[in-house]
Amino acid sequence: MRHAVVLAGGSGTRLWPASRRALPKQLLPLGPGDEPLIVAAVRRARAIAGERVVIVTADSQVEATRAVVPDVELIAEPMARNTAAAIGLAAATIAAVDPDAMLIVLPADQHVADEAELTRLLEAAIAAAGDDAIGTVGITPTRAETGYGYLEVADRLPGAMPVVRFVEKPDRATAEEYLASGRFLWNAGIFVVSARGLLAELDARLPATGAAVRAIAAGGDAAALYAPLPSISIDHGVMEHAARVVTVAAPASLGWDDVGSWAALPAIRGADANGNTLGGEVIVIDGRGNLVLSDDDTLIATVGLSDLVVVKSGNALIVIRKDQAQDVRKIVDALSARGLARYL
Amino acid sequence: MRHAVVLAGGSGTRLWPASRRALPKQLLPLGPGDEPLIVAAVRRARAIAGERVVIVTADSQVEATRAVVPDVELIAEPMARNTAAAIGLAAATIAAVDPDAMLIVLPADQHVADEAELTRLLEAAIAAAGDDAIGTVGITPTRAETGYGYLEVADRLPGAMPVVRFVEKPDRATAEEYLASGRFLWNAGIFVVSARGLLAELDARLPATGAAVRAIAAGGDAAALYAPLPSISIDHGVMEHAARVVTVAAPASLGWDDVGSWAALPAIRGADANGNTLGGEVIVIDGRGNLVLSDDDTLIATVGLSDLVVVKSGNALIVIRKDQAQDVRKIVDALSARGLARYL
Repeated sequence: MRHAVVLAGGSGTRLWPASRRALPKQLLPLGPGDEPLIVAAVRRARAIAGERVVIVTADSQVEATRAVVPDVELIAEPMARNTAAAIGLAAATIAAVDPDAMLIVLPADQHVADEAELTRLLEAAIAAAGDDAIGTVGITPTRAETGYGYLEVADRLPGAMPVVRFVEKPDRATAEEYLASGRFLWNAGIFVVSARGLLAELDARLPATGAAVRAIAAGGDAAALYAPLPSISIDHGVMEHAARVVTVAAPASLGWDDVGSWAALPAIRGADANGNTLGGEVIVIDGRGNLVLSDDDTLIATVGLSDLVVVKSGNALIVIRKDQAQDVRKIVDALSARGLARYL
Repeated sequence: MRHAVVLAGGSGTRLWPASRRALPKQLLPLGPGDEPLIVAAVRRARAIAGERVVIVTADSQVEATRAVVPDVELIAEPMARNTAAAIGLAAATIAAVDPDAMLIVLPADQHVADEAELTRLLEAAIAAAGDDAIGTVGITPTRAETGYGYLEVADRLPGAMPVVRFVEKPDRATAEEYLASGRFLWNAGIFVVSARGLLAELDARLPATGAAVRAIAAGGDAAALYAPLPSISIDHGVMEHAARVVTVAAPASLGWDDVGSWAALPAIRGADANGNTLGGEVIVIDGRGNLVLSDDDTLIATVGLSDLVVVKSGNALIVIRKDQAQDVRKIVDALSARGLARYL
């Protein structure tokens, strides 16, 4: 049967100060109508897998996750060991009760505008993958993005295509070539694979991980078994070496976004007639293209400024240019260096 | 004897959100070491007049003022009627007990870097004014400021000079001419005059005001007597028509500033090695020339931004370019228009 695995392992520094150590971005009310991203992810999971949905998340985030999605089964990782271990743990746990399970893996912290289209794409991926291949949903690139990994296909065809190669985040020139070639898709981390197939791949490529997740599923000491595992992504650890990976290309109309920084919010939440995306008690005078969010009764007022991100959340506020929104990390690093943990 | 009159009548919208209806700028901790401007003004007043210092302020601000300067005598105006009435009320009140009083009038909401120099200038103004003239301290202009009134002198001389003319806020071109001529000084509203002389001027130019302030000083109903008075400044109502006004020119080293907007704060409070003026829990990364102030435990973090004003105070926060800091008024106006009185 189909089982959806929602990966909720993010640490969430890029959307600071809303995201904190204890509150990663998938739990934040960032979507349209202030819907948390994980709620939308669970809805997409149910559309393809019915009620058989599990969320894999860190032990430390179980409580906060349960508060946002109280009716979904959780698998708690004792510590973060990246996606190969997280997906392996879900696969072993599910296979213990359903050895023939087909897994649909969905990140919890993404936005998808056209959810029905995603369901169609996942159905196509499932059909193409069968029992012995991995079927990914690749995103047709709309810009020369250097922040994503890519899937290369030999020819851009309708329907499922064999993946020739997985490539890392490229530099700018390479990303331009990828975009121009038409043969590269963004790797969104959305894929389907049989539990049996995934565990076999782990046994072949990451045998310690394969053994550990089976032992944990059989009732072993999770913390002791999980701690020594290598921290490696499913892409690096499995996909790049897998014998058969196919992909279906999502059209741009899917409206996929990884909500990688505050700059992504306007596309997800929409903007007003002046191009401003506002939330909470906010006044923007003589400005365009701003994202201004206040999470409480604190009024934020700007005059004469454009393309700025101003976000207040809890005990902290950030002001940054939208095109530098990735640099939120610099603040989080500075706070860590100064020992200001109460803001992290 | 000498009596200092500290004028504390400001409504304080230009330093919003720190200044509020109930908390005008002279009461705010804006000076070096977070000293309120009025505390510094009282110190300057005592340096020239000893303990004979009165503060004239609005009835509605008496409590807040007393909290900041608990040991200074207050004269409460029942409502605001501009500086001619405020100074007249002080003059009549003081003259009732000391008919030969010499008044030293000092605005409460200015900054003076070299306080000893101001004392010297006031001594010179007192000597030059005598019993029958008004002696002002004019500020040697350092830029073609269009936001101030000016005093014109016939010739720039050492010591006291007769004032030929008071002029209103000029346009840019006129201000440039004033600066180039060397014969114009900024009118800082700092002057000395005998109580008798001031009351005689009021009787001559604003007889209703002269009569009302005497009647109030004699125990009359302040609200009833004050309400019908014209709202007119001492410059318009008295100085421009006075028979004899002299001025002493303050050198630029006096470090006078009227703290007219947030843009003035760096000059007053100083800046760090990166040219940033910071207060409270603040982190500025890759930025210069910013003023960033937080009044509580709320962290404000900026990355990659320069010449910006970010100020949080109470339940509101402003983000504005330093060179547009005057536009704070637009926010205050917008808040008024929307009925958001809790932020005013």
